[in-house]
Amino acid sequence: MSNRAYNFCAGPAALPEVVLRRVQDEFLDWHKKGLSVIEMSHRSDEFVSIATKAEQDLRDLLYIPSNYKVLFLQGGASQQFAQLPLNLLPQDSTADYIDTGIWGQKAIKEASRYGYVNVAGTAKPYYYHAIPRQNEWKLSSNAAYVHYVANETIGGLEFDWVPEVGDVPLVCDMSSNILSRPIDVSKYGMIYASAQKNIGPSGMLVNIIREDLLGCARLLCPTTLSYKVAADNSSMYNTPPVFAWYLSGLVFEWLKEQGGVAVIGKLNKEKQCMLYDFIDASGLYSNSINLPDRSWMNVPFCLADDRLNELFLTCADERGLLNLKGHRLVGGMRASIYNAIDINAINALVSYMAEFEKEYG
Amino acid sequence: MSNRAYNFCAGPAALPEVVLRRVQDEFLDWHKKGLSVIEMSHRSDEFVSIATKAEQDLRDLLYIPSNYKVLFLQGGASQQFAQLPLNLLPQDSTADYIDTGIWGQKAIKEASRYGYVNVAGTAKPYYYHAIPRQNEWKLSSNAAYVHYVANETIGGLEFDWVPEVGDVPLVCDMSSNILSRPIDVSKYGMIYASAQKNIGPSGMLVNIIREDLLGCARLLCPTTLSYKVAADNSSMYNTPPVFAWYLSGLVFEWLKEQGGVAVIGKLNKEKQCMLYDFIDASGLYSNSINLPDRSWMNVPFCLADDRLNELFLTCADERGLLNLKGHRLVGGMRASIYNAIDINAINALVSYMAEFEKEYG
Repeated sequence: MSNRAYNFCAGPAALPEVVLRRVQDEFLDWHKKGLSVIEMSHRSDEFVSIATKAEQDLRDLLYIPSNYKVLFLQGGASQQFAQLPLNLLPQDSTADYIDTGIWGQKAIKEASRYGYVNVAGTAKPYYYHAIPRQNEWKLSSNAAYVHYVANETIGGLEFDWVPEVGDVPLVCDMSSNILSRPIDVSKYGMIYASAQKNIGPSGMLVNIIREDLLGCARLLCPTTLSYKVAADNSSMYNTPPVFAWYLSGLVFEWLKEQGGVAVIGKLNKEKQCMLYDFIDASGLYSNSINLPDRSWMNVPFCLADDRLNELFLTCADERGLLNLKGHRLVGGMRASIYNAIDINAINALVSYMAEFEKEYG
Repeated sequence: MSNRAYNFCAGPAALPEVVLRRVQDEFLDWHKKGLSVIEMSHRSDEFVSIATKAEQDLRDLLYIPSNYKVLFLQGGASQQFAQLPLNLLPQDSTADYIDTGIWGQKAIKEASRYGYVNVAGTAKPYYYHAIPRQNEWKLSSNAAYVHYVANETIGGLEFDWVPEVGDVPLVCDMSSNILSRPIDVSKYGMIYASAQKNIGPSGMLVNIIREDLLGCARLLCPTTLSYKVAADNSSMYNTPPVFAWYLSGLVFEWLKEQGGVAVIGKLNKEKQCMLYDFIDASGLYSNSINLPDRSWMNVPFCLADDRLNELFLTCADERGLLNLKGHRLVGGMRASIYNAIDINAINALVSYMAEFEKEYG
């Protein structure tokens, strides 16, 4: 029997155990076909059925309108930071970006290599502890699109509202909060999310794009990075990452079995409430993010005395509470509590934190 | 118990069963750490040890000199067709390409978007049934590099010699024959190979590049596509495809246990000899590739009567001999016999082909 720990890693992150068990069971011999899913031609009937079902389940989960394409791409969100302007930012034109933290800034830096970037809103005046309200933003009159990061995995900030940008396409990096609660896809021109948090294994990215935005790629955009080429070829212009696609499909299936995104959203709300409430009530732990902007997915917190950090992590490890160390750029602690982290894990974490505070606080 | 078939798929292709069993065994709980390898941070000590060992084992297997970097990238060979000129072909300069079939042509087409391509040699006069000898090539005096495809997976042609290009960097797509027999890495400027044939699951590519070629990327090369950025960050500028990297490492370990590339090369020679000898001696099957240029990895063959094709495939499937259908662009049959296909599989295939010929030939 395996002895599974509680894994609070920010990504690649914990996945539902029941999904992992199913992958394990059918790993050598998928559906009695005599081969592993990773040994199948991506153009075989078997894999095409896996791929098609994954897309349909994702469409069902997010109520994706029929005028949107769903693409399964390689390269992750960092690659989108270039791929997005290569596809949607015509030469010598402007895009609006919102700076809410490290990921927002990375997107801005890369896009600036391809065109004019107007930083229309920034969390800098708030030391990245609050998301700037829309009435503080200065959107361009002629932006090709407006880009923002829905959830800053490192800082622990999350939008709980959708920017209003009129007819300008709204583009959102949802890498770390897609499928965590309901969204209205029709408000977006494009949503992208790397898989390794709420979707599946690393090495894949899901892109949901409104059809009218396809076909404007720059002349020198690599063919493998063209959204239109991907859309025209059902994400199989070249060999896709079959394992990540397959496993993501099983996660989508699991989400449907849980009752869908509305149900999982209620659970996520409960989980984050329990953790933040405990932190706020404690004398040892703190989180200084503006309350309405706190992330449901990534909960950074500090100990009142930094000298306790190492001990906190060591004792946590011994209890099977893994990967609570904060990102190297910000220090402290961080508990990432994506969909696959259930309420038992939060209970175990809070119990441990309470005991630790009692002993050393 | 699983019932594994003989899988002659061109890619994603069969992998060693012993490797798949190990992945299955440790899938839920890697080395008693309480989590799956796909749930680990790529920056954790555990994953870094996996990644480092994989690289070292590959270096050992191919005797890669220390002045070469080994990169684990995303996107596959099709992406390299753009990534290569973006990194190694300065604006307004020329690269030499050799056209030996469909993959060579795809590389040429994509590179032509980024600079001048001189098709220095082509198999066209031989109807792609023979590789043009080097004395027929017309190399440029000023090429940034010379590119060729070592093995044409669809046509079934393979170089059994290394082009002599003097001081010009020789760049080779070895996607479908890397690790199949010994090579002299020092003759190359860069070797690349997508994983899904002789290395591991799809979604990853191995790039072996001489250090002096790093750092010349074009201004508009996406950061995630820069070889230098990948080299400077040990292929972890962004989240890598951890599962493909891990499994590839297990394949490298398995190859070392088999005795390394020299031993596997002898087995591969034996395997292809057995199959081609049988085809040449038969009255029903034929392969028309020039003898010295026949691929050791992909063996296309035709039946004397095309009307027998469907029956041949159906009966093969019933015997657990899968994926023998030729590529849609060329028709006929194809047996891909990469490293993971052992001599028993070739025996089973030849026995079946002999019986089929006796019955219907």
